[in-house]
Amino acid sequence: MKTQHAPAAQDHPAIDQLTILAPGLIGGSMARAARARHAARRIVIWARRSEVRRSIAGQPWCDEVADTAEAAVRTADLVIVAAPVDKVIPLVRQIASAVQEGAVVSDVGSVKGGIAREGHAALSPRAHFVGSHPMAGSEKTGWENGSAALFESRTCFVTPLPMTDRKALRLVTGFWRILGAKVATVAPKEHDRIVAHISHLPQLLASSLCSFLAGKDPAWLKFAGRGLRDTTRIAGSNPGLWRTIIDQNKGEVRVALRNYRAELGAYESAIARGDWEALEKLISRGRDCRGRLREL
Amino acid sequence: MKTQHAPAAQDHPAIDQLTILAPGLIGGSMARAARARHAARRIVIWARRSEVRRSIAGQPWCDEVADTAEAAVRTADLVIVAAPVDKVIPLVRQIASAVQEGAVVSDVGSVKGGIAREGHAALSPRAHFVGSHPMAGSEKTGWENGSAALFESRTCFVTPLPMTDRKALRLVTGFWRILGAKVATVAPKEHDRIVAHISHLPQLLASSLCSFLAGKDPAWLKFAGRGLRDTTRIAGSNPGLWRTIIDQNKGEVRVALRNYRAELGAYESAIARGDWEALEKLISRGRDCRGRLREL
Repeated sequence: MKTQHAPAAQDHPAIDQLTILAPGLIGGSMARAARARHAARRIVIWARRSEVRRSIAGQPWCDEVADTAEAAVRTADLVIVAAPVDKVIPLVRQIASAVQEGAVVSDVGSVKGGIAREGHAALSPRAHFVGSHPMAGSEKTGWENGSAALFESRTCFVTPLPMTDRKALRLVTGFWRILGAKVATVAPKEHDRIVAHISHLPQLLASSLCSFLAGKDPAWLKFAGRGLRDTTRIAGSNPGLWRTIIDQNKGEVRVALRNYRAELGAYESAIARGDWEALEKLISRGRDCRGRLREL
Repeated sequence: MKTQHAPAAQDHPAIDQLTILAPGLIGGSMARAARARHAARRIVIWARRSEVRRSIAGQPWCDEVADTAEAAVRTADLVIVAAPVDKVIPLVRQIASAVQEGAVVSDVGSVKGGIAREGHAALSPRAHFVGSHPMAGSEKTGWENGSAALFESRTCFVTPLPMTDRKALRLVTGFWRILGAKVATVAPKEHDRIVAHISHLPQLLASSLCSFLAGKDPAWLKFAGRGLRDTTRIAGSNPGLWRTIIDQNKGEVRVALRNYRAELGAYESAIARGDWEALEKLISRGRDCRGRLREL
């Protein structure tokens, strides 16, 4: 994929220092994209493990590695907490008294309700928290596998609260646009309901189909066509990561699962009754929805 | 994809005339592959609609188009009934008295229990029925979209009954190998149980996820990442075709669905209890199974 080296848009508030804490695949990609697209004059990074800090120090997309999270954020205009979803708030609290007045802090966690509320509470009114969630990823993990093109044309949710500072919100949305993402601004609760349906539920279906097939004759797998492979690709994702995401979004995920089970029940019931008209209608409704997904 | 133009293997019983009845994507691909790989000296085709017969008459992979199914099979060594799964047996019965003594008839239907039994009953002992089911396809349908490479390295099930003629079985398995497929010889009942799990269940999950999402805010779809797209790709398949497949395999599909629902229930229950250890174990079990699928 080609990366555009577009300069920062004229109407975008300039970011002098961007700090990325605890970079993995997403954080490593953000640093590369920010460098390639001139999103910040200076990029400072902190990672928990000293060997990671040493490796990152030599990268062209890193101007300085700090020894502590506090030191990394002290002169930052924008701080990205790129840690896993359950580690975001502890890190925000850790840096709360170290950030400069008016600094903006964001994250990249997959669940936003608790993070948006607690991030705001930890920083306000001296600094600002604006949650974000880029819908981009890979089966590969780790900052080494990052790519400057990861966010190109991908949705990035930005999830302000009603009391979120408007200037801070503009800085975060502008930053993601420079990185190539299509920004969707939605309330944290709405975000969590959306991803429960379009991301967490598909993950649980793919995983449960595979763990179900794990109990069958292993020889069956070698007969599988492309259909099963596509349907289950995301079941190859990291179980520890998904455990945490589902934990953080359990309320919305339970509702989505319960309602989905009713839909699957309608299929089962049509098959049990031998009502093939009803089954075809259900499958057609699904095909039409899939068609709309293809067009987008 | 490159097509190997391999001559027929030495130990393979020679096919003088191959007849394909009612070709769609699969039948059209078989004719192309048979020509490219010299699987038969002569290829005769019959299609129900006269305009299709006229179009096919000009194709390089067709030596003769017959006006009736009976005329098409009269001097054939191997007849492939490439009709949809619910039209196979009516066509086999229609040609039963027209085929020559010792002729072999096969099909390409996705469900095999009833077809294997009724196909045998319709032809035996004068001629032989050996069911087959290539695990190959495309979202595109129709003979025009066929490809000589469609079966390369794909599984093709061949499903003899205990009383199936061994020479007829060898002819059919040899034919599929010449077309590039990896042949899996299994009993019809076993075939139907396997495909209920690795093909029909994934189809119903993809379709039901999409018909479920069809009832949600249409704007949500535009936020979807690659995960949802892959997981639901097969939901774009033909509803009328799937209605018939599920109808024909309803016994095995109902068992697979019921047991899968218990697996999904284990996920729901772990989430409801907040038992994240249990959830991670389930997801890990799925990931390991997906890993084995990738290696195959």
